[in-house]
Amino acid sequence: MLVGKASVVRARRVEPLLPAGVRDWFGRRLAVRRWFVSQLETLFRSCGYVPLETPALERLEVLLAKYGEEASKLIFRILHSGDFTEHVDEGAWLAKDWRRLANQIADKGLRYDLTVPLARFVARHYHELAFPFRRYQIQPVWRAERPQRGRFREFLQCDFDILGTESEEADAEVLWILEEGFQRLGLSDFEIVVNDRRLLEDLLSRCGLSSLFQTVCTVLDKVDKVGVRVVREELERLSISSEARDALFRYLEVGHLEELRGSGLVGEASVESFMALLELARSLGVEHIRWDPFLVRGLDYYTGMVCEVRLVGRGVGSVAGGGRYDRLTETFSEWNVPGVGASFGIDRLVDAVVDEVEVPDEWQVHAGVVVFDRELFSEVWREVSGWRRAYLGLRVEVLPPMRLKKALRVLDKKGIPFAILCGSEELSGGRWTVRDMRTGEQVVLSPEAIPEYLLKTLKGRKA
Amino acid sequence: MLVGKASVVRARRVEPLLPAGVRDWFGRRLAVRRWFVSQLETLFRSCGYVPLETPALERLEVLLAKYGEEASKLIFRILHSGDFTEHVDEGAWLAKDWRRLANQIADKGLRYDLTVPLARFVARHYHELAFPFRRYQIQPVWRAERPQRGRFREFLQCDFDILGTESEEADAEVLWILEEGFQRLGLSDFEIVVNDRRLLEDLLSRCGLSSLFQTVCTVLDKVDKVGVRVVREELERLSISSEARDALFRYLEVGHLEELRGSGLVGEASVESFMALLELARSLGVEHIRWDPFLVRGLDYYTGMVCEVRLVGRGVGSVAGGGRYDRLTETFSEWNVPGVGASFGIDRLVDAVVDEVEVPDEWQVHAGVVVFDRELFSEVWREVSGWRRAYLGLRVEVLPPMRLKKALRVLDKKGIPFAILCGSEELSGGRWTVRDMRTGEQVVLSPEAIPEYLLKTLKGRKA
Repeated sequence: MLVGKASVVRARRVEPLLPAGVRDWFGRRLAVRRWFVSQLETLFRSCGYVPLETPALERLEVLLAKYGEEASKLIFRILHSGDFTEHVDEGAWLAKDWRRLANQIADKGLRYDLTVPLARFVARHYHELAFPFRRYQIQPVWRAERPQRGRFREFLQCDFDILGTESEEADAEVLWILEEGFQRLGLSDFEIVVNDRRLLEDLLSRCGLSSLFQTVCTVLDKVDKVGVRVVREELERLSISSEARDALFRYLEVGHLEELRGSGLVGEASVESFMALLELARSLGVEHIRWDPFLVRGLDYYTGMVCEVRLVGRGVGSVAGGGRYDRLTETFSEWNVPGVGASFGIDRLVDAVVDEVEVPDEWQVHAGVVVFDRELFSEVWREVSGWRRAYLGLRVEVLPPMRLKKALRVLDKKGIPFAILCGSEELSGGRWTVRDMRTGEQVVLSPEAIPEYLLKTLKGRKA
Repeated sequence: MLVGKASVVRARRVEPLLPAGVRDWFGRRLAVRRWFVSQLETLFRSCGYVPLETPALERLEVLLAKYGEEASKLIFRILHSGDFTEHVDEGAWLAKDWRRLANQIADKGLRYDLTVPLARFVARHYHELAFPFRRYQIQPVWRAERPQRGRFREFLQCDFDILGTESEEADAEVLWILEEGFQRLGLSDFEIVVNDRRLLEDLLSRCGLSSLFQTVCTVLDKVDKVGVRVVREELERLSISSEARDALFRYLEVGHLEELRGSGLVGEASVESFMALLELARSLGVEHIRWDPFLVRGLDYYTGMVCEVRLVGRGVGSVAGGGRYDRLTETFSEWNVPGVGASFGIDRLVDAVVDEVEVPDEWQVHAGVVVFDRELFSEVWREVSGWRRAYLGLRVEVLPPMRLKKALRVLDKKGIPFAILCGSEELSGGRWTVRDMRTGEQVVLSPEAIPEYLLKTLKGRKA
């Protein structure tokens, strides 16, 4: 009868806490995320991408095949159910050699990104798919990172990829979708920085430094933050030939792609094809693009173009990124399928703009119905159900019978803009009262006129 | 240049397999699931429910607080990152006491349902919420069950709950949403079986069998499968008084709620309030409802009405279920909040009807654009982008430049109904060719007329 009065109870208490680094999504933040996702999903579909959803659980063997040692530390492992000690190595157990034991007491983990699951999927379904195969995937991923401000252990990724083509048109399409995506999200103050890993590979190979690719790229990559001078100093400290150092110094000074041409620092074919890609991207309408000669984006599976999107004037780092990976599926199948794609870092993006962005609030409930007399509940309910079927966008909750004063307090706390008041007089007369919760003004309407009234009145208002 | 010819490579191969009991979702099955989800989401919203998304990872302490011993075996535990042996009990380690160790080397697990996360959320945000609080939540859950046909370790749940009210109108609303939900999914051949656990509690308490609640309910619950005679035999084998056995026998013979009234088997108040609930539900429009005197639905947190939906004539078991739980949050907070809700078992439902149900295929790509001349790619792309912005429901992929014959083969394998053919003649003349992939018929149209042509022509066709 009465509305859920909370009552004090005594029992063993468990604190309602979450593990570090994860969070609940609700209210405005969730509304923004859902709106972002729906905008991007519409964009992907309009370009012919089809959806895929893969399980959170993958075999450790699959996860560990592509990410390398560093990332393997960041994979959450799922303990075997039942007696997990059954097949452990005795020596490792006694020595508490946790590194070895980790892969003996667990054979599954949580997915770390959406690219390796895609490669596994494509390898498995190779003969059923027609290439170029465009797929998008919007699902959470998990990383056992040290939780810190703005860095979470569970976050939503929003990937789109084209597999089975090496054509530069596919690379340009990926860049165009990033450009169009940010425009559609209403974030026009961004830049797409782009590079081709083959330029750096050429450079280091010509310097005889291929084996130091990772080290040197890490140093070069800092130039934005620490400046040319510091990078030069760090390079001097590496034990490399003076010729190699000179070449790297010259690369550091390059401002435009034109200057790379004929410089002898990198292969002409690499420069030419990268310049052609940038030109093609611009001609498709990608305006916010800038070459960053030092962009590498991790060092695992990318083999050509790499790209990253940054919001201008906000210290949030990269909010999207991707590139070409032409050898990803070869681990999983005898057929290799080249691919290119990128990922929107939805959660980071939402966190950056949640307080300022305006999105349609699709969850704001339009009205709460207050039934004065319990006997009338069914009749009111049936009327409201009719509205719900006829106006799919209408959101009306019917309160359980309670006193008017309390009902208005509930609706007020929920921020619901209209109350609909029904007593026996209203029902018999076919004239219901609609009360504006903000102003207290009331209008009397026939029930069938109410849905249009609510939708029309609320259209102009912000949530 | 060429379209991704797969090339044979040699490398250490990892089989592209999934762990047992999980699966990829794509194609028709995913389209059906998404359509079901969107129908239910629209329904929940129209009744004033707001969305919530909780993390996959919960603290073991939270997960283990409510489910009890049996379910705790089914929880996937996440191994500590780093040296998980650091804080283990030495004795347990040497004895390989895996039951004790499991909670020492892991303190997080994957959520097992969406109800306990809701209770944790409500306990944590009690003061910010206005009650009655309606929330819906559509997310996967994980259970370490033995994988078998039709039973998965990761599956989607679709929950809706009303918290903070004990009123019977809330229980009736839950039943109404189940009824309306199945109608909206186009599945009208179902039944909602419903019971009130207080009837059974009364019965067993009057028989002095409260301590045997679980055992006796398990026996009674089999009556549908094995019949009254076998159940009677099993009851005879239990060491209970002959009076108690007689009472249970009489309960077994009850056909209608009316017969319970005045029978002395259960409290009059319990029968009255349950009858009132059924009457209210029917008067709201819940037609497919049937009392099952033996329905218990697990034995953990339900305290009143319990319900379950079954598809008639299909051996798929329960496809939705729920009930009232009036003490769920007391574990997590000093405030107890009563609640009632239910869950649609979306995946099981999809599996049951995927081959027969008709859903709008929102992913079928409408057309593939074939560009004859690489030089024309940008111009064609810009035209197609204009369509994409003007017609948000249009889905057109632009193929990377390739020979016509190959392009048509690709579109054919993908099942894309139209090809749009563009060469320099078409572009300069403003007359593009649209080819029906099924019949081979071609029409010539101005590019701006193509989107409407595609949408109109495809409207009548099935995917």
